[in-house]
Amino acid sequence: MSLIAVGTMAFDAIETPFGKIDKIVGGSAVFVAYAASNFVKPVQQVSIIGYDFPKEELEELKKRGVQLDGVELVPDKKSFFWSGRYHEDMNSRDTLITDLNVLEDFNPKIPDTYQDAEFLMLGNLAPATQLSVIRQMKKRPKLIVMDTMNFWMEIALPDLEEVLKEVDLLMINDAEARQLSGQFSLVKAAKSILEMGPKYLIIKKGEHGALLFHGTNVFFAPALPLEDVFDPTGAGDTFAGGFVGHLAKTGDISFENMKRGIIVGSAMASFCVEKFGATRLKEITKEDIERRLQQFKELVNFEIELV
Amino acid sequence: MSLIAVGTMAFDAIETPFGKIDKIVGGSAVFVAYAASNFVKPVQQVSIIGYDFPKEELEELKKRGVQLDGVELVPDKKSFFWSGRYHEDMNSRDTLITDLNVLEDFNPKIPDTYQDAEFLMLGNLAPATQLSVIRQMKKRPKLIVMDTMNFWMEIALPDLEEVLKEVDLLMINDAEARQLSGQFSLVKAAKSILEMGPKYLIIKKGEHGALLFHGTNVFFAPALPLEDVFDPTGAGDTFAGGFVGHLAKTGDISFENMKRGIIVGSAMASFCVEKFGATRLKEITKEDIERRLQQFKELVNFEIELV
Repeated sequence: MSLIAVGTMAFDAIETPFGKIDKIVGGSAVFVAYAASNFVKPVQQVSIIGYDFPKEELEELKKRGVQLDGVELVPDKKSFFWSGRYHEDMNSRDTLITDLNVLEDFNPKIPDTYQDAEFLMLGNLAPATQLSVIRQMKKRPKLIVMDTMNFWMEIALPDLEEVLKEVDLLMINDAEARQLSGQFSLVKAAKSILEMGPKYLIIKKGEHGALLFHGTNVFFAPALPLEDVFDPTGAGDTFAGGFVGHLAKTGDISFENMKRGIIVGSAMASFCVEKFGATRLKEITKEDIERRLQQFKELVNFEIELV
Repeated sequence: MSLIAVGTMAFDAIETPFGKIDKIVGGSAVFVAYAASNFVKPVQQVSIIGYDFPKEELEELKKRGVQLDGVELVPDKKSFFWSGRYHEDMNSRDTLITDLNVLEDFNPKIPDTYQDAEFLMLGNLAPATQLSVIRQMKKRPKLIVMDTMNFWMEIALPDLEEVLKEVDLLMINDAEARQLSGQFSLVKAAKSILEMGPKYLIIKKGEHGALLFHGTNVFFAPALPLEDVFDPTGAGDTFAGGFVGHLAKTGDISFENMKRGIIVGSAMASFCVEKFGATRLKEITKEDIERRLQQFKELVNFEIELV
């Protein structure tokens, strides 16, 4: 089964309490691709890059089974650039710079070669852009997953509401779930969001794990307790990539299998935060992933007799 | 197996975004007793009360197998009184009033009838008071669990460090773990605290669950996602009561059984927050508890094949 990943391919400059890096490859579609390609091939990338995006990075992605037919290269513009500084708790950050560059012109075209994809991951982009991708698919994918952010709730809510009606699963963080629903309780927020269209909702709580809601079912996956969170940039997208990669690998979109997907996503995210950008994701082996999944089992599974 | 619960029996006045109550019975030993008595009898209470503590509450506790030989009644003083107001997130609160009253004279005496207890739960009290209880036990209990708070870290750290050397398990919240260890990362905080004496450490994260550390083992239990947290007062003590009650019931202090204990504690705490004070704890049946434990299983357990 193949997976389309729509999102940014960019440069980040990052400051954390542990260090600083002036320029490293980032962007939602990059993290999704590095995570998902461990589980499914091809990952069919849809993005836009400038003349400065490193050729070696594209080669590295290709080697991992990432197709780039849907990545537009703009020869006279720079790639999207984001710069941010994390606070000590690593859960909050200040955006220092956002240079849209090529992203201003992003009008994704789905190549014919992508038309059979059964899984579609829509990274955080303007809702209108996400909708245009969905409309270009001749056959509706088996599962459409989307990310979004507070910014779009503020400036493009009607568009966002329209996309929500078209997707199967929404993946946002706790603050965004509260903002979108106007509910403080995450359980109430989930109820209200599930009435907006998606049948599944994942609320990401960073170091506090993630919740999956579907009807009256709830599943909770913790984040792995780590000695150090070195750089959280891309952890949410890596989680998404692991999740949807696992679903695409197995072709099974049951609630039970989504539980496994969330654990896989959490495991991948736990690698991502160990080094700057996608550095760690490029190093890990199948065995590293297996070991980490085992750690998650030990972390949460328990046996209890009900008498 | 019997369990000694040392702590306060008090009155609380509580304000939450959902309501306000001027006077309700509270105190750490009350919550521990209501939770633990579902699993183990007798619960042997050690506390101090004033003339105003309701006789009906004592009767109610006795009916549940709570022994009160170790509860001192001071006929000319009022019971300990605490008043607090919760913020909207329910994770933080302001203390409005603390009237020590009888607590100023608290010098607990362990009755001879309590001497065989195998489990000792030391609620949050002055470390010197906790130490005096430990010293009074002729035979060391099989498991000594203690709670404490930031206040004692600030004004009685040397005493606190002395108690820590004498206990098996410390149970504190995330902010307290960070303060005690001087480490922001909870994994590092746990490492450092486990070097201070206790072999086990539980870090409570409120709505974000709880972590159990022992050597290099970690277990995580979530809090149940609830539509409304009505009143968190006593949730930590109720968690402690469920945890140690389960251990005392089974007589098993292995890491595996502590995992179950944490789930039982989390289940009991999830009831506690549904109504003011211990109101909900007095209503629930064995069947309610079983059902909630089942919910916890569904919430976190997953099957994943490692290939």
